[in-house]
Amino acid sequence: MTRDAVGAFVDTHAEEWLANLHEWLAIPSVSADPARADAVAASASWLAAALSAAGFPTVEVWPTPGHPAVFAHWPSSEEHAPRVLVYGHHDVQPVDPESAWTHPPFTATRVGDELFARGAADDKGQVLMHTLGLAAHLAQRRTRTPAVQLSVLVEGEEEVGSPHFPALLRAHAAELASDVVVVSDTGMYAADVPSVCTGMRGLVYAEVTLSGADGDLHSGMFGGAIPNPATALARVLAGLHDDEHRVRLAGFYDRVVELSERERALVASLPFDEASWLAEVAHARGVAGEAGYSTLERLWARPTAEVHGLLAGYTGPGQKTVIPTTASAKVSFRLVPDQDPAQVADAFRRFVAERVPSGLSAQVEILGDGVRPCLTPLDDPALQATMRALGRATGSAVRITREGGSGPEADLAEILGAPVVFLGVGLPTDRIHAPDERASISQLLTGARAAAYLWEELPGALSLDVASS
Amino acid sequence: MTRDAVGAFVDTHAEEWLANLHEWLAIPSVSADPARADAVAASASWLAAALSAAGFPTVEVWPTPGHPAVFAHWPSSEEHAPRVLVYGHHDVQPVDPESAWTHPPFTATRVGDELFARGAADDKGQVLMHTLGLAAHLAQRRTRTPAVQLSVLVEGEEEVGSPHFPALLRAHAAELASDVVVVSDTGMYAADVPSVCTGMRGLVYAEVTLSGADGDLHSGMFGGAIPNPATALARVLAGLHDDEHRVRLAGFYDRVVELSERERALVASLPFDEASWLAEVAHARGVAGEAGYSTLERLWARPTAEVHGLLAGYTGPGQKTVIPTTASAKVSFRLVPDQDPAQVADAFRRFVAERVPSGLSAQVEILGDGVRPCLTPLDDPALQATMRALGRATGSAVRITREGGSGPEADLAEILGAPVVFLGVGLPTDRIHAPDERASISQLLTGARAAAYLWEELPGALSLDVASS
Repeated sequence: MTRDAVGAFVDTHAEEWLANLHEWLAIPSVSADPARADAVAASASWLAAALSAAGFPTVEVWPTPGHPAVFAHWPSSEEHAPRVLVYGHHDVQPVDPESAWTHPPFTATRVGDELFARGAADDKGQVLMHTLGLAAHLAQRRTRTPAVQLSVLVEGEEEVGSPHFPALLRAHAAELASDVVVVSDTGMYAADVPSVCTGMRGLVYAEVTLSGADGDLHSGMFGGAIPNPATALARVLAGLHDDEHRVRLAGFYDRVVELSERERALVASLPFDEASWLAEVAHARGVAGEAGYSTLERLWARPTAEVHGLLAGYTGPGQKTVIPTTASAKVSFRLVPDQDPAQVADAFRRFVAERVPSGLSAQVEILGDGVRPCLTPLDDPALQATMRALGRATGSAVRITREGGSGPEADLAEILGAPVVFLGVGLPTDRIHAPDERASISQLLTGARAAAYLWEELPGALSLDVASS
Repeated sequence: MTRDAVGAFVDTHAEEWLANLHEWLAIPSVSADPARADAVAASASWLAAALSAAGFPTVEVWPTPGHPAVFAHWPSSEEHAPRVLVYGHHDVQPVDPESAWTHPPFTATRVGDELFARGAADDKGQVLMHTLGLAAHLAQRRTRTPAVQLSVLVEGEEEVGSPHFPALLRAHAAELASDVVVVSDTGMYAADVPSVCTGMRGLVYAEVTLSGADGDLHSGMFGGAIPNPATALARVLAGLHDDEHRVRLAGFYDRVVELSERERALVASLPFDEASWLAEVAHARGVAGEAGYSTLERLWARPTAEVHGLLAGYTGPGQKTVIPTTASAKVSFRLVPDQDPAQVADAFRRFVAERVPSGLSAQVEILGDGVRPCLTPLDDPALQATMRALGRATGSAVRITREGGSGPEADLAEILGAPVVFLGVGLPTDRIHAPDERASISQLLTGARAAAYLWEELPGALSLDVASS
């Protein structure tokens, strides 16, 4: 496609912008690791400085009882400019096993169009693309102020379930009041199939620990006669699914909104080659999931139970014949509208309690408050504006998707009372949360252009909305 | 009880002997840990030197493809003296979690009658008690040679399933030819209930790993649509037992010899307070096991399946939403006569293979060659002599037990063609294989006296045996 002024600006400033991103990616802001708390704080400071340097008149670091968020605001000189809040996060996932990384996780490494680093795609790259997009937008504006009242809120606890984010939103509700929230923490369907996400799954994350004897016991002296926490944990976890891969918590499906025929048809119309997806995206050898649903439906619109970690007894080399004193698992449930995290957490507590054998005790710890699922109606005007902006940035028709991941979008929508739209340019091949996370540099630049166009598109879309309501 | 000359000798030399044991216990001969191979070799050298110092005319360190064994021989000057082989091991279990030890595992610490150290009871203390017992025996002998042709074989791989021990026995069959094997690696029923063990369970130890995608995957992007190795592993392990706690491997019980009514009655006649056993020995809160059997029967005479370790995915602090690339478990089966380790290993391989979901692969590694179960007939003359010797050492009636653990006794019996008897003085409270392993010093001295008496008892018992056959 030919480049307009926005495109030319982005191209001209791309290298300078990338150098900045390299700096930020070097800060190991792993929110799950208490030992990295200083790095998360350093990441917030870095971002605050970068937003000041980008020209935001107001930049603040907002502390929380956990990791800090960064807020910035740039008022528009236009009357009636809609209030827009851009959301992203500056914390990243852990990197273990670090030995599985081809490139060091915290030294950004550029290989062709790919930028390898933890956080390159999720989410530092997609947060920082807004500074480039805004600069491109402002370069077109005589007033040198944006066409929208632009606020940015970048939290530091997304990867641990945003435990303090709802309270932060409530505490700053006046400053954050918005007509639309633009979330940049998702992806496109493919590099050549631009798309806008309309919903994300929710999440309940739990750690369950079964405890038996006060210490590890010799399985020759005690084996066969006292309950084994590891065996019992296996039995609990094995009960999570029935043979059709449906989750067996009581009431789990009661509030699940089934896919409409229209959305099933839109999903089915997307180009999806399951064999290529398995081989090139998942790097896996088979699909498995709930009976009666396609792979994309399972990923986007069906709730799940997954085991993320197991730890019990002796895991070193060779043999050790112990009955372990404890056995633990990390388990999460992905939720879809209108499942409620608190209800699912309670159901899981009961599920475990009903399955603990006599002689063992169980502890279920829910990590964080859970994340509610969210869904934007297909006819939402801000969603339509986002699709036009991404269409201009890519020169292609824009499709509708959902994502299977989870973020605090439902909280943003409910607490701020604003519709949420997703401007995300990640790719399914980014390997986020895994070793060798990478971002496509051209995708990040597409995102910067789309953001610039979105600030042009939104005033008209939202004023039409007001007029029509 | 009053002390005879043997008892007086043991008392007089106890402190000097204990100082030697402290030295040996300081060598961290953990056979399961490849990083400790040098320590296992050092332990063999230490023992060889100690046996030379004790006067054994022949002392040899026998290398194996794994860890070395120590052999020693002291010929008797008596004609027709029976050939006796004492068996023990100088390797020890791993110590993790080391933080759970009250006393350092490799600095022997004496608290009253208890000697805390890894290996204090299992098995260095019980091996070294023979040097003290033999000295007490020789002090009574005008010839200053033992009443039996005494050989000692102390291996270095018992805690990893004695993988090279059968080959070692076969390679040295001529030197090891014996009329009876005396195993000192077991325990008594209680300090005030002296007993002789008549059998041990066998063992098959396996590590099973299920593998899925090439790397960890984000459970938001992939969850619900591809098979999860951790969930699948839980389902495999949950299938190991039915609801009556019977093991569900095909054919598992086909060769199990049921307890005789006589042995059930002997077991039932032992003083056993399940509540005290749970609280003071197991430090556990409940029993669980195969329906239809008592706790002692479950421990001594019934086969089991136990999970010793689980490892998958993310096990650090906080949340990480990965579908793990692999999930592993360490699993063992305790066997009773006449189960065969190779048959059980095959049945487990098939059990896993039948339960691996499409899209995952499974690897079952059998660690070591397995251990066959063994059982000494109640009327065996060497067993009767052992009971008399222990009766003299304790002044009490001696009971019959079995042990639930596993050792290479069946190999000793089969390859050397000799009956096996157990002279063991461990206690159920020794916490072997666990943190804070300890030995009772008075029990070790009882063992030394019993050994001295056994060398007196055996010639008559075994010549009677020859006469009556």
